Amino acid sequence: MAVSVIILAAGQGTRMRSTLPKVLHRLAGRPLLSHVIAKARQLNPEQISVVYGHGGETVPEAIGATDIIWVRQESQLGTGHAVAQGLPHIKPDASLLILYGDVPLVEVQTLQSLLVIAEQGGIGLLTVELPNPTGYGRIIRDRLGKISKIVEEADTSPEQREIREVNTGIIAIEARYLGQLIPKLSNNNAQGEYYLTDIIEYAIAEDHRVETVSATDRVEVMGINDRGQLARLERAYQAREAARLMGEGVSLSDPARFDLRGELEVGQDINIDINVIFEGRVTLGDGVKIGPNCYIRNAALREGVEVLANCVIEDAIIDSHARIGPFARIRPETRLGEGVHVGNFVEIKKSTINQGSKVNHLSYIGDATVGKEVNIGAGTITCNYDGANKHPTIIEDHAFIGSNTQLVAPVKIGTGATIGAGTTITRDAPPGELTLSRVPQKTRSGWKRATKKKSD
Amino acid sequence: MAVSVIILAAGQGTRMRSTLPKVLHRLAGRPLLSHVIAKARQLNPEQISVVYGHGGETVPEAIGATDIIWVRQESQLGTGHAVAQGLPHIKPDASLLILYGDVPLVEVQTLQSLLVIAEQGGIGLLTVELPNPTGYGRIIRDRLGKISKIVEEADTSPEQREIREVNTGIIAIEARYLGQLIPKLSNNNAQGEYYLTDIIEYAIAEDHRVETVSATDRVEVMGINDRGQLARLERAYQAREAARLMGEGVSLSDPARFDLRGELEVGQDINIDINVIFEGRVTLGDGVKIGPNCYIRNAALREGVEVLANCVIEDAIIDSHARIGPFARIRPETRLGEGVHVGNFVEIKKSTINQGSKVNHLSYIGDATVGKEVNIGAGTITCNYDGANKHPTIIEDHAFIGSNTQLVAPVKIGTGATIGAGTTITRDAPPGELTLSRVPQKTRSGWKRATKKKSD
Amino acid sequence: MAVSVIILAAGQGTRMRSTLPKVLHRLAGRPLLSHVIAKARQLNPEQISVVYGHGGETVPEAIGATDIIWVRQESQLGTGHAVAQGLPHIKPDASLLILYGDVPLVEVQTLQSLLVIAEQGGIGLLTVELPNPTGYGRIIRDRLGKISKIVEEADTSPEQREIREVNTGIIAIEARYLGQLIPKLSNNNAQGEYYLTDIIEYAIAEDHRVETVSATDRVEVMGINDRGQLARLERAYQAREAARLMGEGVSLSDPARFDLRGELEVGQDINIDINVIFEGRVTLGDGVKIGPNCYIRNAALREGVEVLANCVIEDAIIDSHARIGPFARIRPETRLGEGVHVGNFVEIKKSTINQGSKVNHLSYIGDATVGKEVNIGAGTITCNYDGANKHPTIIEDHAFIGSNTQLVAPVKIGTGATIGAGTTITRDAPPGELTLSRVPQKTRSGWKRATKKKSD
Repeated sequence: MAVSVIILAAGQGTRMRSTLPKVLHRLAGRPLLSHVIAKARQLNPEQISVVYGHGGETVPEAIGATDIIWVRQESQLGTGHAVAQGLPHIKPDASLLILYGDVPLVEVQTLQSLLVIAEQGGIGLLTVELPNPTGYGRIIRDRLGKISKIVEEADTSPEQREIREVNTGIIAIEARYLGQLIPKLSNNNAQGEYYLTDIIEYAIAEDHRVETVSATDRVEVMGINDRGQLARLERAYQAREAARLMGEGVSLSDPARFDLRGELEVGQDINIDINVIFEGRVTLGDGVKIGPNCYIRNAALREGVEVLANCVIEDAIIDSHARIGPFARIRPETRLGEGVHVGNFVEIKKSTINQGSKVNHLSYIGDATVGKEVNIGAGTITCNYDGANKHPTIIEDHAFIGSNTQLVAPVKIGTGATIGAGTTITRDAPPGELTLSRVPQKTRSGWKRATKKKSD
Repeated sequence: MAVSVIILAAGQGTRMRSTLPKVLHRLAGRPLLSHVIAKARQLNPEQISVVYGHGGETVPEAIGATDIIWVRQESQLGTGHAVAQGLPHIKPDASLLILYGDVPLVEVQTLQSLLVIAEQGGIGLLTVELPNPTGYGRIIRDRLGKISKIVEEADTSPEQREIREVNTGIIAIEARYLGQLIPKLSNNNAQGEYYLTDIIEYAIAEDHRVETVSATDRVEVMGINDRGQLARLERAYQAREAARLMGEGVSLSDPARFDLRGELEVGQDINIDINVIFEGRVTLGDGVKIGPNCYIRNAALREGVEVLANCVIEDAIIDSHARIGPFARIRPETRLGEGVHVGNFVEIKKSTINQGSKVNHLSYIGDATVGKEVNIGAGTITCNYDGANKHPTIIEDHAFIGSNTQLVAPVKIGTGATIGAGTTITRDAPPGELTLSRVPQKTRSGWKRATKKKSD
Repeated sequence: MAVSVIILAAGQGTRMRSTLPKVLHRLAGRPLLSHVIAKARQLNPEQISVVYGHGGETVPEAIGATDIIWVRQESQLGTGHAVAQGLPHIKPDASLLILYGDVPLVEVQTLQSLLVIAEQGGIGLLTVELPNPTGYGRIIRDRLGKISKIVEEADTSPEQREIREVNTGIIAIEARYLGQLIPKLSNNNAQGEYYLTDIIEYAIAEDHRVETVSATDRVEVMGINDRGQLARLERAYQAREAARLMGEGVSLSDPARFDLRGELEVGQDINIDINVIFEGRVTLGDGVKIGPNCYIRNAALREGVEVLANCVIEDAIIDSHARIGPFARIRPETRLGEGVHVGNFVEIKKSTINQGSKVNHLSYIGDATVGKEVNIGAGTITCNYDGANKHPTIIEDHAFIGSNTQLVAPVKIGTGATIGAGTTITRDAPPGELTLSRVPQKTRSGWKRATKKKSD
């Protein structure tokens, strides 16, 4: 049977105290709703419908998925009402799963267990055992252990209040059958809302099969209502990712000080020191070492690359055995060749630096193509911007750039050329020769250094 | 009835293994004693008296509050003796609260509950339930639940040892009545000390009303005797502050990696990444984003300011939508205008940089006034110090400073002026023109680069 | 009686998913096996034998201890077989201790308790109580509380499964007696391995005295089988070290964000902010303050040294009251004198900087000797490398180096000399005089700055 998914994502999230709709808040760098959609997609559903409301069109715009059926709920009248908005867009012969845009860590396997129940004609209800169930609808079971009803907190007897198994609201059901139950929902309750959960009672009354699946980990059904819960779920997510990576053979100096906000593809025997953040898509080859306090985004670091403390790397490809940092910043569109060294207080932007070349100290290399085995001295600056346009710098193989050199682009330094320290290069420098712009050093006899002013 | 407070702050804190008196050790950047005084002040007391001893005058000097009655206890003979030193300075008709200079996180609301009891003529005693009460005086209650006595660990029966409610030593009492009880205290005990707690027994014997208030959180009555306890309380304090800020709508990537050592005023939708430290008074406007590993002290960051990874900012005002970092250092007396960009390996000191200007790479700007829409190239240095005095640099609107330029202050760059790369500016540069100091680039034919010495 | 130790270190550690043999994985910067050897050495043993296998000679090579008897186990046939390899190298009259190369945090005191039993002719067996004993061999005791046997998980009755005291495998025994028991071991079990533990059964059958010692802390007997366990033990180790240092009077802003991978010798009243990493041998004098996110390796910081945020220091000696950072990098073979200031974005390599000198901004000082009270301006670079060899720079007392100066080594700046900003120094500068290389500043009238290209 085909699977369809309705995701309820219309809530405001008042306690987030934010101008952003709740489902657009970020967990591990992605909107909560994107996490839920990603989980739904893993079920290969025929249709995904997202019911949105608060925040209006900012929600579909931020998510941007074109294959999703976006249904706007004009006023938020409860989960039953929200599902009722989405249901007409779902083909009736589907097994339908109801998910929540603010419950991001639900497991695909759990959802599959619920769908099996729906495919067999029943209703699958996800429940969870909570150490403190206060506030949640309790699962009441008959003598045979079958669910007989859900009792909301306000209606619980003292005995029922002790029950720790609660309703999560996540349900799998035949879309056609849900279509029959929805019209029965009433808003005749304290909140004046239509509750989706009431369908369970109707189904049981009709002797329809209702079965529960129990979430093993509380985290997978935790919803987010405030920033404290968001932070707790962020840490739970990160702890899981850390555990997964360690299982794959990555060494983390401290799993509690590790953040992955995207995807990390890893080789063998990788060492990651404390407080490293990965964002976007990062690939780390065999034997890569990342020092403490590094931020790496959208980058591929090949075999044996070593990144020392306090580096920032974005949108770059770093070839094998390159060594970067400490205190290096690699900016987008950079490619560093095999064995390249980039040292402290060096910024590389939109440049290619080829095999074995070194930029070890206090330099800015931008819009440049640097050959092999080039040595770029401390304080070298590519003057790539004339106040209006950017220009390229080319430095050919084996060149040696003296310290504090300015390369006023566009300019080319020939193969094996040597540039004297402190030179301003404004024209191409020929290969193999020494080029420099130098004033003879002079000593002015009798000059006196300033003395401290009294008034200071 | 007027409220007065005596704070006992004479202890040495041997286990701190420090030359600093215990109450001057810092929690969240402030001396322990300052925390207690701040709590006391929130009760609007008529008088605050601090009994100090170990460390001598360094204590009042470090705290520096002039409205406090400082009473020096020459020898430390117990809490009863300490209170006896402070009491003569307290007006007898006050409700008196006894606090401890090493119990910094007591809650104002708890203290108010104790004071209500004192104002009604009773003694208010703060107790707390401990999972492991070993070592503390147990609260013994009669059948009606009224406190009948406090039994010290050494004197407990096996039954009493199971009692988990213990004495905290924090007491509210009419000053006049305390004056009657103090002379009854005896040092006829193992330690040879006068214990304040003994007054409870005397009061009960006199049928004086004694009521307890229970601290809900153990943290609020935790005293500090060693650096381990100091660290635990530091983390408890930080966890509270993190929770409070998240409640106000601040997103923290990791509440366990957040440090506030002062006061933080926040707008809406602020994002703070891992390992950020705030010190002093910091204001963050709406939508501010702070990257990982930043240290920010005494600064105002207006709406939409973005601080990238690894920045240090002190005593600065950053206008809206400015972008700073990564690896930027903003030093005191700096003001950055709207939309200003300060990039990597840039130090700004005692300077004003106006709207839309950019200092993106490897520069030192000190004692400077920079106009609007100025572009300061990589490696620019204001030579503000002549070895004796500091001099100002003025760069007017729309100027373009080429890379590796030295601006030898005092000097002025006119509106719209362009400075060539590698220039040493020693005199004012006229507006609108290109100014530079440049030597023609020359190539020396036949020059040979040095070769590696054998001996190396 | 003489003590000998056999350390079993032949396992592969498949679940580490590593090319490195398990015992060479690092805890607190040292191979697991080195920790165990260090513990063994504290017992002053006559002989230490390490039985290695997986990883082959890389194990003894990595450890490099010449006084150890390295015994290669060609095929791993169980702990009993491993001990049998090592035993022939041990003198028979020794009290022999069996340790494990992947159980690094065992306490010396615990081992001594076991050895006392062996010295008295018994077998000492280390056990531990686990909250969840699943998978471990349970300790079965008779009515008198004496150990009667060890039952492996697979063979436990439901009743025995509840027993939480389990075998750790760490044993002390007379070498001679072990030699009698080893030949009795059989590999007639599910794994087809020879289990050392079986000797306990044989000894009891022979009425030989077997006594247990209980590990008080689970951490001390935890073995490492995967990277998750390695990380947990790393954090346990670091928490212990943090507690120990706080006990010695060191203030840690957050003990959970502290890493010591080596040895730290401390004075009084030291403050260490968050995320500081120490490696190798580090000495901190009285009153030293280390700011957040610093990495310090093999360094001595004398009294009153202050290191600001985000510094990297390696193989350096920093004299009293020097101030370093933020964002400073001190590289090997550096010595900074009393009161020296090294500021932001400054790299010092293999240099001596004497008392009171300052290098405050954006400089590279390498292979230099700097005198007293020297001021080195921003952007100063020692051009110590000519593309083939490194050369020294000497800057004498009281010199003033203007900003953006290049010192082309070998070169000497005389006492009290002043170097103008932007100078390239290629020859020695005489003492007391102003030396510079400067081109007069010129303004080119009518020059037009480039305009933005349409195509961009």
